[in-house]
Amino acid sequence: MKIAQVAPLFESVPPAQYGGTERVVANLTNELVRLGHEVTLFASADSSTRGKLVPMCPRALRLDTGCRDQLAWHVLMTECVAAQADRFDLIHFHIGHFHFPLVRRLDVPHVTTLHGRLDLPELEPLYNEFSDMPVISISDAQRQPLPMANWIATIPHGLPETMFQFQPEPEGYLAFLGRISLEKRVDRAIAIATALGWPLKIAAKIDPADVGYFEQEVRPLLDNPLVEFVGEIDDQAKGSFLGRARALLFPIDWPEPFGLVMIEALACGTPVVAFRAGSVEEVVEHGRTGFIVDTDDEAVAATRRVTTIDRRTCRQSFEQHFTARRMVERHVSVYSQVINAKAASVQVAI
Amino acid sequence: MKIAQVAPLFESVPPAQYGGTERVVANLTNELVRLGHEVTLFASADSSTRGKLVPMCPRALRLDTGCRDQLAWHVLMTECVAAQADRFDLIHFHIGHFHFPLVRRLDVPHVTTLHGRLDLPELEPLYNEFSDMPVISISDAQRQPLPMANWIATIPHGLPETMFQFQPEPEGYLAFLGRISLEKRVDRAIAIATALGWPLKIAAKIDPADVGYFEQEVRPLLDNPLVEFVGEIDDQAKGSFLGRARALLFPIDWPEPFGLVMIEALACGTPVVAFRAGSVEEVVEHGRTGFIVDTDDEAVAATRRVTTIDRRTCRQSFEQHFTARRMVERHVSVYSQVINAKAASVQVAI
Repeated sequence: MKIAQVAPLFESVPPAQYGGTERVVANLTNELVRLGHEVTLFASADSSTRGKLVPMCPRALRLDTGCRDQLAWHVLMTECVAAQADRFDLIHFHIGHFHFPLVRRLDVPHVTTLHGRLDLPELEPLYNEFSDMPVISISDAQRQPLPMANWIATIPHGLPETMFQFQPEPEGYLAFLGRISLEKRVDRAIAIATALGWPLKIAAKIDPADVGYFEQEVRPLLDNPLVEFVGEIDDQAKGSFLGRARALLFPIDWPEPFGLVMIEALACGTPVVAFRAGSVEEVVEHGRTGFIVDTDDEAVAATRRVTTIDRRTCRQSFEQHFTARRMVERHVSVYSQVINAKAASVQVAI
Repeated sequence: MKIAQVAPLFESVPPAQYGGTERVVANLTNELVRLGHEVTLFASADSSTRGKLVPMCPRALRLDTGCRDQLAWHVLMTECVAAQADRFDLIHFHIGHFHFPLVRRLDVPHVTTLHGRLDLPELEPLYNEFSDMPVISISDAQRQPLPMANWIATIPHGLPETMFQFQPEPEGYLAFLGRISLEKRVDRAIAIATALGWPLKIAAKIDPADVGYFEQEVRPLLDNPLVEFVGEIDDQAKGSFLGRARALLFPIDWPEPFGLVMIEALACGTPVVAFRAGSVEEVVEHGRTGFIVDTDDEAVAATRRVTTIDRRTCRQSFEQHFTARRMVERHVSVYSQVINAKAASVQVAI
């Protein structure tokens, strides 16, 4: 198949450090190429891919402090994609709903993966209008606020099988990895570790918008001999950080659409203790690959029992459900389905 | 003519208080209706117009603190406009370049007024691609960074003739009106007033992004017996605020695309002392309706001589160049030109 992947321009594909969407697009593109498909990737020029890169802006916009109008680059990208649309069998968008009015007027089969949270009131009128756009969710839970959308598949994220090594023998610490923000609840992770008297390592990115929250709410909690704050880490460091942990704490307080870090931990063999929200029940198998909890007390009790989880089972769960290969097989099947549906509708129209 | 006006959704049309673009769209729409045209206005539901309002979101997005995804409403609006495009003889967009890929694929004549600053590096590749889109500038100076764009007219802003009353007898103060921001240079206005020993009244909006600048740089300067800070004011208060002033100080330090407040002052008969930048030389007639200066010393000297300016000349300049009637006549002529060009190109194609 000739496939176009259209990535957001905020991070490179893959991102240098933190960044979920662009990382998934990178894995998807590389794995499609490995399977023999011809993939064109529309992304920032500092991306690196096995596909054919069409550079849409000089560098990832998050790093381009001189750029005031990030929308301008995305407008230019959608035009560029539309202008060469008939070169592709299918176009796969990862840029939210920005392109909907345009692609509705193109003849080429397309599909859009929605990577973000969808429980915003302004999305309801939007998807009432665009209930024909074929969309892919990254968890079933993510769909809930928008039942009127044209959901054609749920495809969980996947990672290259060799990206993280299985670590059979962990050290004694707990790990937290993510953005520092109200909804990720690093404060809860600290409370759990403190209740157990176990060390906690925190690897986290702090967005400019969250600096106030970090300074006021989080920094005072770091003055704790059990807690080590290691800052933002890259993929290299991540494998060792997650793999050596006794468990990953995922104490979220928001409808997480997927939660890539959970499968990164599982790939290392590290069990996950997660609060029930968003996609969690679709990723963690309670009692097999970690524990799903509803309260702080349950979290402490579950974490204490986490050594009863077999780390090989965690790795096997990753290999079975969450590899890039598995993710790509699912995509290829959806692509065929969309292309055939389009051909059938043209047939009817003729 | 059957005309669609497509406004940004950040403010109502017209805005309750500060806001340039939506105010211009309001004047343009009302005056077109008065001339007998059938005008449909796409805008937020709290707008009020003589045209037919198609409400696109419940309220102005600046006031809707629950809205996280402002783009979603604009995506929905462009779809809504495109879906009924063939009902109109012409569509006039005021939403930047957001709609370019979409309207390129519609058959209806359209034109876009660019209301913002254009000296951003990311706009150059955008307008290299979209050099066919018919665009209107609000000053000749505004065009300078983008010579490749398809400029079809410069149309200065206009105000209803009766909106501001001519005030022949001012009081003794100087006026500053605008946003508090680095580029508007309220600090310069304070320095000029202080050098002259004349009172200065400041009517200004403070955007959340500029609160830091205000607190650190501006607030200390307000502790000055000559300076009175009156906050953000509405249209009612504006006429009296500007009309009673001896002069408007416009000490900008950026390429101002138009500067609506200059013609608001002229409409009251109030001369303008402005720094040479952006549109200033196209609005102020040096020595007739105010003074154009390059340095703080020149500004002080010019302001001292401002009583030599005949206030009736200022009002006459407004009536001759900057009324809504004048603005609308120019638009009708451009609309005809665009419609005829489209018809001719279709003829050629047939």
